[in-house]
Amino acid sequence: MRIIIIGGVAGGASAAAKARRTNEAADIIMFERGPFVSFANCGLPYYVGNTIADRNELLLQTPESFWNRFRVEVKVGHEVLRINRSQKHVKVKNLNTGAVFSEPYDKLILAPGAGAIVPPLSGIHAKNIFTVKTVPDSDAIKSFITEHLTKQAVVVGGGFIGLETAEALMNLKLDVTVVEMANQILLPFDQDMAVLVSAHLREKGIHLIEGDGIRAFHEQDDLAYETELQSGQRLPMDLAILSIGVRPELKLAREAELQIGDAGGIVVNDHQQTSDPDIYAAGDAVEVRHLVTGKPTRIPLAGPANKQGRVAGANAAGGDLHFPGALGTAIVETMGIIAAKTGLSENDARAHGFDYFVSVTHPLDHTGYYPGAEQLHVKLTVEQKTGKLLGAQIIGEQGVDKRIDVIATALTAGLTVEDLEQLDLAYAPQFNSAKGPVIMAGFVAANTLRGEVQTITNEELQHRLTNNPNLQLLDVRNPSEFAEQHLPQAHLIPIDSLREHLHELDPQKETVVYCRVGLRGYLAARILLQHGFEQVYNLTGGILSYPLLSENKKTPNS
Amino acid sequence: MRIIIIGGVAGGASAAAKARRTNEAADIIMFERGPFVSFANCGLPYYVGNTIADRNELLLQTPESFWNRFRVEVKVGHEVLRINRSQKHVKVKNLNTGAVFSEPYDKLILAPGAGAIVPPLSGIHAKNIFTVKTVPDSDAIKSFITEHLTKQAVVVGGGFIGLETAEALMNLKLDVTVVEMANQILLPFDQDMAVLVSAHLREKGIHLIEGDGIRAFHEQDDLAYETELQSGQRLPMDLAILSIGVRPELKLAREAELQIGDAGGIVVNDHQQTSDPDIYAAGDAVEVRHLVTGKPTRIPLAGPANKQGRVAGANAAGGDLHFPGALGTAIVETMGIIAAKTGLSENDARAHGFDYFVSVTHPLDHTGYYPGAEQLHVKLTVEQKTGKLLGAQIIGEQGVDKRIDVIATALTAGLTVEDLEQLDLAYAPQFNSAKGPVIMAGFVAANTLRGEVQTITNEELQHRLTNNPNLQLLDVRNPSEFAEQHLPQAHLIPIDSLREHLHELDPQKETVVYCRVGLRGYLAARILLQHGFEQVYNLTGGILSYPLLSENKKTPNS
Repeated sequence: MRIIIIGGVAGGASAAAKARRTNEAADIIMFERGPFVSFANCGLPYYVGNTIADRNELLLQTPESFWNRFRVEVKVGHEVLRINRSQKHVKVKNLNTGAVFSEPYDKLILAPGAGAIVPPLSGIHAKNIFTVKTVPDSDAIKSFITEHLTKQAVVVGGGFIGLETAEALMNLKLDVTVVEMANQILLPFDQDMAVLVSAHLREKGIHLIEGDGIRAFHEQDDLAYETELQSGQRLPMDLAILSIGVRPELKLAREAELQIGDAGGIVVNDHQQTSDPDIYAAGDAVEVRHLVTGKPTRIPLAGPANKQGRVAGANAAGGDLHFPGALGTAIVETMGIIAAKTGLSENDARAHGFDYFVSVTHPLDHTGYYPGAEQLHVKLTVEQKTGKLLGAQIIGEQGVDKRIDVIATALTAGLTVEDLEQLDLAYAPQFNSAKGPVIMAGFVAANTLRGEVQTITNEELQHRLTNNPNLQLLDVRNPSEFAEQHLPQAHLIPIDSLREHLHELDPQKETVVYCRVGLRGYLAARILLQHGFEQVYNLTGGILSYPLLSENKKTPNS
Repeated sequence: MRIIIIGGVAGGASAAAKARRTNEAADIIMFERGPFVSFANCGLPYYVGNTIADRNELLLQTPESFWNRFRVEVKVGHEVLRINRSQKHVKVKNLNTGAVFSEPYDKLILAPGAGAIVPPLSGIHAKNIFTVKTVPDSDAIKSFITEHLTKQAVVVGGGFIGLETAEALMNLKLDVTVVEMANQILLPFDQDMAVLVSAHLREKGIHLIEGDGIRAFHEQDDLAYETELQSGQRLPMDLAILSIGVRPELKLAREAELQIGDAGGIVVNDHQQTSDPDIYAAGDAVEVRHLVTGKPTRIPLAGPANKQGRVAGANAAGGDLHFPGALGTAIVETMGIIAAKTGLSENDARAHGFDYFVSVTHPLDHTGYYPGAEQLHVKLTVEQKTGKLLGAQIIGEQGVDKRIDVIATALTAGLTVEDLEQLDLAYAPQFNSAKGPVIMAGFVAANTLRGEVQTITNEELQHRLTNNPNLQLLDVRNPSEFAEQHLPQAHLIPIDSLREHLHELDPQKETVVYCRVGLRGYLAARILLQHGFEQVYNLTGGILSYPLLSENKKTPNS
């Protein structure tokens, strides 16, 4: 049996190792177009920024190590030009010699990955404009910075790679501007969460331009010296990084007439088998079943790629593994702030037509009495009728990764927010609180689910403040908090004296209460409801979820 | 309606707040024997060791704050002497004035907690022997150390509190000896895991005596100057901490003839209701349904206590919440090493008659190419037939809390190890690997479950090496690793040349392969199985799981 694998990074390398463990007798050949196999592409921004000092650290395997350990024949610098499905062979070009040859296969595994998107803009091919997708890309950026006086950098695209690379360039003492065409960075996140990151980045000295795209790069002697935005704004620059996104490499699959899905990837079943039963596929080029929506989507991330590769490798070699799908769980750290997501954001839930509610909390990552606690911002998306988790977004400076993984696990298992509040998680004061962030998020969402309190999001509140002049807005924080900042029209009655001042309020009016994070507001809502107030809403997440949004709206281009 | 709560720490305080949120109209009175309510008892060792500098940090609520926020009348320094169930009142003694009075109740919530065990040993009441259960306990330890020349400390009991307190005393530059009567510290853990902690503690300069108990303290002028062990060994001492364990406070419940269960706690249903429907109970004194065994047990930890209190408070006040049970998830950090557990250890699984297997892995907590990665030690207990998780133990220097919480969540949801290997967890190089520790543990255990490889534990291997002289023991690491340390009788064939040296082995013999952590051993086992070897076992966790055990056995008292 002869297995050919196209692509030697995450999906391909995993497939090769698993195929060999499954089948000692198979011939396994892996073709990789680039000069390296199994390199750490997620480490590239950290290598650019010198957090990873030794380039060799990025090279996890070599053709030699693959041969020695797994008897997999690895051919780097070899591009597969075409798949001949009827005769079951591939046409391969040795990029070093130019020689073209055919290799027969019994089973084929496609792991071509995705390439960085390079838009067809004037000046885009200047020598100081880079992507961050391969080891040679990173080498080129580092060489350029070493060899040229480089002060001002423009990062195009405020997604995960863009923000990691922005940090890397800040580490190198460059002046960094991130330009994002959408109205917010980190598009997979809801805007009220993304603004927490953008505010942090501005505070740390990154220039952030949202809602504006690149029109052109102006160049001289093959070097771009300025980028012109669609708004007309011009930014002087010594270097630019393109991190707009990735596009799956579908050329081979299309030419071979393998089925391509509506989500724009190679269609595979849960055995990672394509529309041709002898061809498997894995990684950034395939479609994945989203475990919450049940629909096919694309999730170009290392975790699914590795798991899919393992499944494809096992099955191509005669085994029987399956890949059930993924949640799109992802995490990014930039300039000391961490943002993570799993499942559906509020935007996603709305777009997919779910009947949902959201619940926002701002707990400390561990007990306040143990030194070093930091605030987390947690937003849950919950199915209205069943209380089932649909997704979560978490932002903070530490402890984010733990909570998103716990919720991703709960999400996989189909748990409800009432299950969440009962989780028995590990508690010691430096790691968690007895009612830690996940359990607290569960409490708050489950209280809403059970109807103990009705909540309102900042977005809904803004809308209602505009449309309902009779809305009674109650701030239950203390006077010093109120003096510092409060919502317009808000009436102050501190929670501890609310019971004595109920006569100041009209029980017939629709009432929205808020505090700093939502906890005192919850108690206030309970008090009002039990004193005959008919329509009471607690602002989910409190005022902490509110002002950043408005601040950000005031200054979209600063 | 009148609700009386006995005990004002974790369970009682949670009950009071939730009762109020549930019912604005109830009178709520809380009696606490000690001088403080709602204090951070899990913070006490850190206050002793000056990690928490300000004592006020430990006092989360005061009687005044409870009244102001929740209109709960808190009476500290009040001991409830008796419950009169037929007349529905409690007899209370004001410990400051000596006055005794009765208070009627409609609903009663018992949250008496558990007291530190003080064994009846000669000299036990010396003034330099302390427990660490209350704020006054901690005050007394700190005062004693300030006022006396204190150099040598003995900590009696190597459980969670004992090891946290040992660290605290090390922080204060004392010479610390931990004496543990059992053959290992951290009894909830299997010995092969606990030895990782004891080796670390010895390396950090803590004297550790296992398998020996205290016979007596020898005192002069009310101060113990020496402790005598059951072995006859004598330890000079300036101070001793008793951290032997806790005993539930059952006096009131017994006298009121509430049902006490076989696990030694107050019996409650899932509404935290005792055998008297008007009396609820929560916290360290109650029995809890273990979510894996389904049996009642006691779990005297803050997490369950807080959740039970919330449920008891809601239900006593007319609400309807339930508490499904717990897993005994727990974590301890001491001298830079972290040990965490959820569900059943191997010992637990055996004791409860489960048909189980274990799976040991030693992954890095994040990618090796990103700076600062540390090794984790992960042991899963898995149900043999179904592959369902039964429990996990994890030890390491960082990232332990995250993985135990993910597995606790999986355990709650009844996931199998095949579900574990498919989890979509957050990956960036500083937080995780694409095939991170939980997923890797899932891969390895699922490979075993599916029969891709048979594994053997270090314990079984030791047994078999003694009983089967024909056993073929194969080390597949490289020669330098072998030279450093290997198992007696092991034959060396490095994995990369195994395929060429199969003739050195006898395919008829029972063969055990091992490497450093189990990964190369797995590939070796797959190679042997596919070359006609009939009985092949991979040492789960590799040699890294093995030698510590034997080292430790050699020197139980050093």
